[in-house]
Amino acid sequence: MNFGIAGLGYWGPNIVRNLQAHKKAAKIFAYDLNSNRLEKIKEKFPAVHLVNKFDDLLKKDIDAIVIATPVFSHFELARKALQNKKHIWVEKPFVMNSTEAKELLELANKEHLRIFVDHTFIYTGAVRKMKELIEKKELGNIKYFDSARINLGIFQHDINVVWDLAPHDLSILNFILPKHKIEAVSANGIANYYNLENIAQLSLYLTNDCFANLHLNWTSPVKIRRIIVGGDKKMLVFDDTENFEKIKVYDSGVEINSPESLHEALVQYRIGDMYSPKVLQTEALSLAVNEFISAIEENREPLTNGYDGLKVVSVLEASQKSIQNKGQLVRINSV
Amino acid sequence: MNFGIAGLGYWGPNIVRNLQAHKKAAKIFAYDLNSNRLEKIKEKFPAVHLVNKFDDLLKKDIDAIVIATPVFSHFELARKALQNKKHIWVEKPFVMNSTEAKELLELANKEHLRIFVDHTFIYTGAVRKMKELIEKKELGNIKYFDSARINLGIFQHDINVVWDLAPHDLSILNFILPKHKIEAVSANGIANYYNLENIAQLSLYLTNDCFANLHLNWTSPVKIRRIIVGGDKKMLVFDDTENFEKIKVYDSGVEINSPESLHEALVQYRIGDMYSPKVLQTEALSLAVNEFISAIEENREPLTNGYDGLKVVSVLEASQKSIQNKGQLVRINSV
Amino acid sequence: MNFGIAGLGYWGPNIVRNLQAHKKAAKIFAYDLNSNRLEKIKEKFPAVHLVNKFDDLLKKDIDAIVIATPVFSHFELARKALQNKKHIWVEKPFVMNSTEAKELLELANKEHLRIFVDHTFIYTGAVRKMKELIEKKELGNIKYFDSARINLGIFQHDINVVWDLAPHDLSILNFILPKHKIEAVSANGIANYYNLENIAQLSLYLTNDCFANLHLNWTSPVKIRRIIVGGDKKMLVFDDTENFEKIKVYDSGVEINSPESLHEALVQYRIGDMYSPKVLQTEALSLAVNEFISAIEENREPLTNGYDGLKVVSVLEASQKSIQNKGQLVRINSV
Amino acid sequence: MNFGIAGLGYWGPNIVRNLQAHKKAAKIFAYDLNSNRLEKIKEKFPAVHLVNKFDDLLKKDIDAIVIATPVFSHFELARKALQNKKHIWVEKPFVMNSTEAKELLELANKEHLRIFVDHTFIYTGAVRKMKELIEKKELGNIKYFDSARINLGIFQHDINVVWDLAPHDLSILNFILPKHKIEAVSANGIANYYNLENIAQLSLYLTNDCFANLHLNWTSPVKIRRIIVGGDKKMLVFDDTENFEKIKVYDSGVEINSPESLHEALVQYRIGDMYSPKVLQTEALSLAVNEFISAIEENREPLTNGYDGLKVVSVLEASQKSIQNKGQLVRINSV
Repeated sequence: MNFGIAGLGYWGPNIVRNLQAHKKAAKIFAYDLNSNRLEKIKEKFPAVHLVNKFDDLLKKDIDAIVIATPVFSHFELARKALQNKKHIWVEKPFVMNSTEAKELLELANKEHLRIFVDHTFIYTGAVRKMKELIEKKELGNIKYFDSARINLGIFQHDINVVWDLAPHDLSILNFILPKHKIEAVSANGIANYYNLENIAQLSLYLTNDCFANLHLNWTSPVKIRRIIVGGDKKMLVFDDTENFEKIKVYDSGVEINSPESLHEALVQYRIGDMYSPKVLQTEALSLAVNEFISAIEENREPLTNGYDGLKVVSVLEASQKSIQNKGQLVRINSV
Repeated sequence: MNFGIAGLGYWGPNIVRNLQAHKKAAKIFAYDLNSNRLEKIKEKFPAVHLVNKFDDLLKKDIDAIVIATPVFSHFELARKALQNKKHIWVEKPFVMNSTEAKELLELANKEHLRIFVDHTFIYTGAVRKMKELIEKKELGNIKYFDSARINLGIFQHDINVVWDLAPHDLSILNFILPKHKIEAVSANGIANYYNLENIAQLSLYLTNDCFANLHLNWTSPVKIRRIIVGGDKKMLVFDDTENFEKIKVYDSGVEINSPESLHEALVQYRIGDMYSPKVLQTEALSLAVNEFISAIEENREPLTNGYDGLKVVSVLEASQKSIQNKGQLVRINSV
Repeated sequence: MNFGIAGLGYWGPNIVRNLQAHKKAAKIFAYDLNSNRLEKIKEKFPAVHLVNKFDDLLKKDIDAIVIATPVFSHFELARKALQNKKHIWVEKPFVMNSTEAKELLELANKEHLRIFVDHTFIYTGAVRKMKELIEKKELGNIKYFDSARINLGIFQHDINVVWDLAPHDLSILNFILPKHKIEAVSANGIANYYNLENIAQLSLYLTNDCFANLHLNWTSPVKIRRIIVGGDKKMLVFDDTENFEKIKVYDSGVEINSPESLHEALVQYRIGDMYSPKVLQTEALSLAVNEFISAIEENREPLTNGYDGLKVVSVLEASQKSIQNKGQLVRINSV
Repeated sequence: MNFGIAGLGYWGPNIVRNLQAHKKAAKIFAYDLNSNRLEKIKEKFPAVHLVNKFDDLLKKDIDAIVIATPVFSHFELARKALQNKKHIWVEKPFVMNSTEAKELLELANKEHLRIFVDHTFIYTGAVRKMKELIEKKELGNIKYFDSARINLGIFQHDINVVWDLAPHDLSILNFILPKHKIEAVSANGIANYYNLENIAQLSLYLTNDCFANLHLNWTSPVKIRRIIVGGDKKMLVFDDTENFEKIKVYDSGVEINSPESLHEALVQYRIGDMYSPKVLQTEALSLAVNEFISAIEENREPLTNGYDGLKVVSVLEASQKSIQNKGQLVRINSV
């Protein structure tokens, strides 16, 4: 299988490395607006072929194109690729709005092509383990999902902190809680330095009385990458800044009393052992590349496909609208 | 000076201990609905006098009454105390709404009595240090205030997680940023186990383009007590779960570029040294007791007075309304 | 039962508080050289009776005497107490050398009196849990015991850092590994500020090919209280500076290979889950007081008795000798 | 400049990468006993030339040879390289004993060749910062150096945990405290799984009343990489497992009293602010490669040269002897 890749900024070279390492990958053609980046990729990966225009990629004998350019260009490049019968891999966030997402999905369906959206976290051992534990009902009924994703992050030119960081949390949320639908969002934020928000809070109302918080900040002096999933039986913490013990499961539960007086507790906690399951250490991106290639070969939807991309984009879109209206509740159109 | 105290639950005995240790305190009269608690306090502090009705306190020769009962009773007890010419110390949150707060303030003014609201954090070395650093302009202009206050907390009978925990953050915010007024709030939350919210997020819009997040949760398996104050010069983290190094100041700043192309960064970070100033370890409650007694003696407003209580209650009230309307922006009436 | 206590410095008042709270304790008589301390104890615990000379304690109608004075005085006071038919509780370290320990043991045996040595850690939930796990063979065969106990500690007048801190580790070691005998010690240290060592390292050779390190420092800017117990099946870490998760059990094992070439590993690690069992939070000192009183009533040896005290003192004595000879191996006389 | 490299195990490929990235490096010839490794290096770095025998390296037109093979082979390969007029880079530990080290030094001197010993830590920002602070007398007089270097480490075939890990600490110690000479060592350890020690403790006696502890363990379930340097003015902690804040300087000092009674403290602590200076993040190995090349070009001793290698080996040798004699003090022959 031959591949093209457009966009060799921060993430692109990692995809090149993982494509090159996959046994099914033959030739790789690379493109970037910036010629310095092209030269660098050639230095590091001498086997890669360079092209100077995106349209040149389309003419090559390639099966699939990876789009790792700035978000505003995803739609245009993806459409061209699909129109030229190429499967596509698109970096997160998928596109700038749900209309674009739907158009690409239709096009892909018509042409029987695959859309892979790079929701990388889905391929980590930690998120796999979270899903496994929730599916086994180890946490009981899920009551809340609480994420903090803050650090000194790179300000993007075309998207704010929500579009940059929330796709991680939203794709994880959709993946580990498939039966809980996000129904509405109330979001607030501020643009301290530029016309794009650098801080935002999203409150998501899910079905089954479940609630989610996403706390996002590009301008925090400390780095926090923590998701708490609260069940009525147990609670789980995923701390991605830990090298080991990324997942901790707390045997802490909440028990409701019917107190007869003000001196009795309404709620009692059961606090038991904690354990930290071992999680797979395989690089997520190598599993993602493998899933992309397998889905093409097996003629099936990849695990993180265009519909997942659309779902995430729909929430981002609604959040944006809510932020502009300072917290006003915005319903999510079901996908 | 003689004191009465009503309410000997979790916090009351600590106030008794600190009152008793103050050189100006003579007799202490204690009252609680629950006779077991009265017996216990007598065991621990044999010098304390017990009374069986709140009204008995009013008849004693006492100067001031401490009200450490459940919140719903604060107003009634406080009013009676003021009407009987007693200065009052009221636990946080001050009262259940701003109307009650205003009535008590009027009454106290008329009678020339003092209202002390126990915003204890204002008396900690850490918060004092934060105020000192911000006043010295060490952080530059303040851009955001971000607080997370989550753990397995005690469900209250009469108030939700916002009324229970947010007074800490709001009183700190008002104290360290006196020139930034809270203008509006958008809040969201959920009541997973009872009719009172156990999780909530508050987004506060402040003057001078400043933004604040409060993240509150009674049902988190991990305990987090962290406030980040982001300035455009430096940033500060206050982690109250640390035994030492509670305050860390990061010499990290944000610098805006005018990029000519997409390949250049919009924002650059300046990352320098971090330092952790030593903070005073004196028990906050002993400083609070001293401030209360001094304010009475010196016939002046205490540092945390009824107006501060009203300010906090106004935001709680607005937040409550916003939560009921799922994030709808609610303006704060200026106090 | 009536009690006397000599020594009201740092630890003494805690013992008074726990004695007073015990249902079997009637009168408590307290003594200290320093009259300020006596006054303070009276203020805090008005029911306590004060005496001005140690010998006055002996004349009172008391069953047992707690000796919480500086170490150099333990032997003399303990001997007098035993000679006057009082059971004794002695703070750690028991006495200044094994000759003294043996004399007290003989005296107590002759008089049918109890000696309780306050190896407090034995009464903590964490150490109990460690013993339980080791007894259940969950760790497999124990290969090593590694302790670090360092912070800015109080320099003692009469004993060095080894005599001050090592009794904790040695009593834990003897308790959790009763079948492993300490056979010899090589110790090194330095006295940076005074004629008493403020830093020391003890290497202990135990039976069954087991090895122990004790790393002790009174002059460390950071506080570390960590014991690692390495088994060939699992490994355990006890971190006493953690508020929760004090004990962590790592399912990490070592497997030996017989490599055929230099490119193959000699040893492989099996790295599995980690878990942190819940441990009892009851105050150790209250359990210790209860054990002391029960042992007296039931006419039996307490869990931490004079023989345990002698065992610990024998290793301290040998370590001291080794330090003076810069690491020279010193055999421990079996007790 | 052309380079040869022997040994492409764990570390070798990193050196190849850094050599290749250096502007002065032209051709690189690589050798390993294991042909799989040779193939892998060719895949990753297609520009590298492979040779099948070490002696083939000697015949090539190369200036310097990097020796990254197992320690037992260092001496033989280094000698051949020097005899063939090649400068050498030798991985740590330099050689198996001080006799070998001295022979290589003599040979290099005779032939005017450079010996570089890869004490990599000397090229890290953290160690540079430590040296800078100590030289500026910010810590005052240095009283102790305390290192813990433990984790689940790779068992070596030819060397024990001391020879594997202690070179890091010893090279740092020699670098940051050049005026303190290591005079003697008392060491203890145990070989739990094999004939090579997997745990060891070194106590080092330095001039100027300074003391050092090295605590080494290949079989710890937790990873610790921490050095404490205690001065009489301030104290410093270097925690290499931290991603940020690797160095913390504590303004904690020790003050000696002349107490008049047992109730007064012998020593008082001054506890002030802590700060964490920013340290350079440049990859140490790239600075090391640059130093090697510069030293050759400028015809001078590199910063980490054969004498530094000999110094470290002398202490390793003495420690080994001490371990065999269970802690017996062994004098270090001055170099």
